[in-house]
Amino acid sequence: MDHCFIQFTILRFVGFGYLMTFLKTYGLGAVGLTMLITAIGIQWYLFCESFFRQWYANDNDAEAWVNVNVNIYALTKALFGVSSVLISFGAVIGKVKPFQLVIMTISSLVFHAFNAEIILAGAMKTADIGGTYAYHMFGAYFGLSVSYFLKRSKQPADPPTGYIADIFSMVGTLFLWIYWPSFVGGLAEADSGQQDRAIVNTILALSASTICTFYLSSDRSSGHIFRPADIQNATLAGGVAVGCIANLNLNPVNAILVGCGAGFASTLGYQVLQPFLYNKFGLHDTCGIHNLHGMPSIIGGIASICISAYKQSGGRNHDSEVFRSHHGNEAWRQFVSILLVVTCGIVSGAITAWIMNVVEPDAEHTEFDDQLYWETAGDFKSEESTKNVDNGFVVVSQSSKKGGEEFQINVQ
Amino acid sequence: MDHCFIQFTILRFVGFGYLMTFLKTYGLGAVGLTMLITAIGIQWYLFCESFFRQWYANDNDAEAWVNVNVNIYALTKALFGVSSVLISFGAVIGKVKPFQLVIMTISSLVFHAFNAEIILAGAMKTADIGGTYAYHMFGAYFGLSVSYFLKRSKQPADPPTGYIADIFSMVGTLFLWIYWPSFVGGLAEADSGQQDRAIVNTILALSASTICTFYLSSDRSSGHIFRPADIQNATLAGGVAVGCIANLNLNPVNAILVGCGAGFASTLGYQVLQPFLYNKFGLHDTCGIHNLHGMPSIIGGIASICISAYKQSGGRNHDSEVFRSHHGNEAWRQFVSILLVVTCGIVSGAITAWIMNVVEPDAEHTEFDDQLYWETAGDFKSEESTKNVDNGFVVVSQSSKKGGEEFQINVQ
Amino acid sequence: MDHCFIQFTILRFVGFGYLMTFLKTYGLGAVGLTMLITAIGIQWYLFCESFFRQWYANDNDAEAWVNVNVNIYALTKALFGVSSVLISFGAVIGKVKPFQLVIMTISSLVFHAFNAEIILAGAMKTADIGGTYAYHMFGAYFGLSVSYFLKRSKQPADPPTGYIADIFSMVGTLFLWIYWPSFVGGLAEADSGQQDRAIVNTILALSASTICTFYLSSDRSSGHIFRPADIQNATLAGGVAVGCIANLNLNPVNAILVGCGAGFASTLGYQVLQPFLYNKFGLHDTCGIHNLHGMPSIIGGIASICISAYKQSGGRNHDSEVFRSHHGNEAWRQFVSILLVVTCGIVSGAITAWIMNVVEPDAEHTEFDDQLYWETAGDFKSEESTKNVDNGFVVVSQSSKKGGEEFQINVQ
Repeated sequence: MDHCFIQFTILRFVGFGYLMTFLKTYGLGAVGLTMLITAIGIQWYLFCESFFRQWYANDNDAEAWVNVNVNIYALTKALFGVSSVLISFGAVIGKVKPFQLVIMTISSLVFHAFNAEIILAGAMKTADIGGTYAYHMFGAYFGLSVSYFLKRSKQPADPPTGYIADIFSMVGTLFLWIYWPSFVGGLAEADSGQQDRAIVNTILALSASTICTFYLSSDRSSGHIFRPADIQNATLAGGVAVGCIANLNLNPVNAILVGCGAGFASTLGYQVLQPFLYNKFGLHDTCGIHNLHGMPSIIGGIASICISAYKQSGGRNHDSEVFRSHHGNEAWRQFVSILLVVTCGIVSGAITAWIMNVVEPDAEHTEFDDQLYWETAGDFKSEESTKNVDNGFVVVSQSSKKGGEEFQINVQ
Repeated sequence: MDHCFIQFTILRFVGFGYLMTFLKTYGLGAVGLTMLITAIGIQWYLFCESFFRQWYANDNDAEAWVNVNVNIYALTKALFGVSSVLISFGAVIGKVKPFQLVIMTISSLVFHAFNAEIILAGAMKTADIGGTYAYHMFGAYFGLSVSYFLKRSKQPADPPTGYIADIFSMVGTLFLWIYWPSFVGGLAEADSGQQDRAIVNTILALSASTICTFYLSSDRSSGHIFRPADIQNATLAGGVAVGCIANLNLNPVNAILVGCGAGFASTLGYQVLQPFLYNKFGLHDTCGIHNLHGMPSIIGGIASICISAYKQSGGRNHDSEVFRSHHGNEAWRQFVSILLVVTCGIVSGAITAWIMNVVEPDAEHTEFDDQLYWETAGDFKSEESTKNVDNGFVVVSQSSKKGGEEFQINVQ
Repeated sequence: MDHCFIQFTILRFVGFGYLMTFLKTYGLGAVGLTMLITAIGIQWYLFCESFFRQWYANDNDAEAWVNVNVNIYALTKALFGVSSVLISFGAVIGKVKPFQLVIMTISSLVFHAFNAEIILAGAMKTADIGGTYAYHMFGAYFGLSVSYFLKRSKQPADPPTGYIADIFSMVGTLFLWIYWPSFVGGLAEADSGQQDRAIVNTILALSASTICTFYLSSDRSSGHIFRPADIQNATLAGGVAVGCIANLNLNPVNAILVGCGAGFASTLGYQVLQPFLYNKFGLHDTCGIHNLHGMPSIIGGIASICISAYKQSGGRNHDSEVFRSHHGNEAWRQFVSILLVVTCGIVSGAITAWIMNVVEPDAEHTEFDDQLYWETAGDFKSEESTKNVDNGFVVVSQSSKKGGEEFQINVQ
């Protein structure tokens, strides 16, 4: 189990942390605040999860309130919970203060525990081994809602990106890709048939979405070039989507199709939908979590509806082990779960944004700037001046004795 | 098994991907195309391996053609197969188009499966636990052959390197070093004596080649300084060479000697042989895979010849478990395997290069340039202008009213 | 076991190596020399540990001198030994020549094996599952002593840092954080209650020190900004301190308190004590190992004294399994161990520094400069000129025909 814990910490820290370092002037914030969120969340979620789990399980039994478990299994579950905060963090990174982020972490985990324990595991008994509903869908719509309802003195602009920052960001992509199968299969019974299937289906879906992303990213751009933002993110969309069906007895083709669909949707999201949402509704989504987590989790949910409907209506291989608690219509449950999770995410995000506005009103104007919150090294802003130099022409104002004549110097 | 799969993905993605980021202006290509090759190869090799394995095993039995296995074990074997493509990729990186690379991946895996299943496992029953023959020798000579026979409009030049790129590249080196023991012992029976021996011998060989590389790299250079290319690559040569003998009952000194020999040969390769081959034969080898994979695998093959000859001629500790399928002369089989694998690699590489030339003729002139295939950030080429500034003297052409006199500005 | 070995190599290589890349102009040295130290140390410590272990265990039995074990367990113990050298390396990095470092590695491991096998495991039977005494306390005071007694022609200055170097350094921090629990629990009996407790307590202590470091780093600085040096290092102090008590039956609050104390002390060390020691005593500590390893290990030692005194004096849950070899006063033993280890570290460090001075006298003046020992890429020093450009004003000396008038150019 400690071995699993390590895998999941890598996923959170190295994966999510470095994925966001594509922000050229916010790299320290991306990695450092990921550490802070995790360190706070891992302790706080022990209480949140315990509270809602016991509340639901024993609501008629006054004596059942027992201790909070502090063991490696509880800490692993807490790490899973933290991943929904880190997903939400992607929507607001660079636009909130560190203390606002602490508030968001604490608030988010309460609502996440309510959503995961009461709605999904308790009331709906949703089939969701890999957390497509619990982490990705909730985290994405919670984060988008916070980003939308947070009061800011001005509209946020596009964050500056950089070449080396893009390569750093690929570190995050690779570690997320690598550890995604263990993320999806992680909470399944160890070495069971379900866990093996979950891992295999996730690998297939990830490979499919990687290929589709490379294809579509190149095909849609002028000059047929790859866009780093697509490759860094949309390649992972297959893993998001396949999470809620990965442990079913599927033909491998199903996992591949779901991966392809998620990869296509996610790439289109980065290229078309994200600018549209920003220009039309003013919804600013720094890392594009709607494309990587929001839409693919909806696609995964729809796939789980179709598959459970097909299986229940006499399809082969009814997975009684997966659907064992379901007495009603499984497809219907999966569908209602989507509505409940999205609603829960948006409402709780709005509440959290309101708290954040009240506790620490936003006064800063500058965004995506490590210098506001970090003691940066002397070469921090040098890239900007370098960029000017790069243009070939640097406008300089000469302050010699002869007077301030303006002239251009052509740096060869 | 999923745990092993993760280790091997890290080896492929983070190890091979970042090892090649020493190319200062091709970092996105190095990491991104590694992802693309892996995503395609992992699915395609499921079919290749299944085809040749069944063909050989059941060639007299028409009914034996069964389904392609899709499970975690098959995916792990596919990942191993992909590593031979990634090795070949090192010879041509920066000089081929992404689509040419897709063709190379598909073609390479067919020939690799033929080589591994028909020649090595089937006909020769070569002792090769760590894939010295199957992955390193085949991948190296295949890649060199592709690089040699690929038609290009002009000779490729040395790729630009960078200081930060060198540090990124060390990430790849470290992860390869770390996961190499599990790569060599990975397909051995779990927790067997063979696997333990394979891991211990690999660690010793890697340590030995690391020390030898540091020594020789510093000793041969003017000023006794380390060359990053040596340290990034030749330190790993011991792991390549020891692969085909790692599971034998060896005195630890043997593993250390093989590691030393591989480290020395590889460092000399980077310093002497690679420039010689380029100037004499026009063989351009971007990452020096001949030094890291080609020569060390030959050294490993020779070591396996010597050791099996010694063991069979009455030496102590005949490893009946390793050589159980060998009825003839084991040393002879190991020797003939070298010839067959190198021939197979060169011929199939030539065929693949011909296909690549036909399907997508090369028209581009610029090389090692991410801008051709990626939407790069604004600061992509800024390092070049910076380099000019660095010289201390920047030639500027002043366009003031007084006329275009040329003068030098000394940036202090 | 090979799986553990991999975890510990990641800790050494990626963790310690990249943690030290915050040195902007010494990144290749930080990562490369970490490899060299590990490759040498892992082989040399096999002999050191075997020598002292057998010497102590069988000092009355002349026939007991047996072979040196070379297996995966011995290699894992050797890797643990290497970590004390890597800790010491942090105090002298950038100020010693590579060959001096080789001497330090060899000498340090002899004394470390003496300290760990004869003093701690043999004579004192100190409770120290996670190596707080054996690795952190010894390594820190050994390294500080070497740095203090090493003769240098001039006082070392502050090393240059960089923005991208800081982000690289965070890679090291994250991997150390992630693998620290397995470092502390690594040598405990697998899957035992002790190992589980060790892992859980370490995670809690790390989380606590992370939160305290973020708080104090921001609170003490002008402008309430985070200092990268604090975040990169002090966040890990909790793991150092909790090492010698992690396997005890503790209330989780104890682990959290120890983590908080270590985080506070370490942050204050970086901000207050380190400049004080340098200005007052000329003790130069490049990476601040006194703050990350020295003080937190003393805090851990004090905590172990208090806890063992409390437990022995009738406190609940006497951990007979941990303290089984202790017949005398356990608290007293833990206390005397601190004195012995610190003394052993300082004395053996002074001896080692003397050897280093004799074998290879220091003649170089420049420090923290990769160019002395590495063939650096063409853009190596470009950041420095960039930094000048960054100031906004670049003083240029115009060498036109009109004469050498000095003027300022304002780069916009």
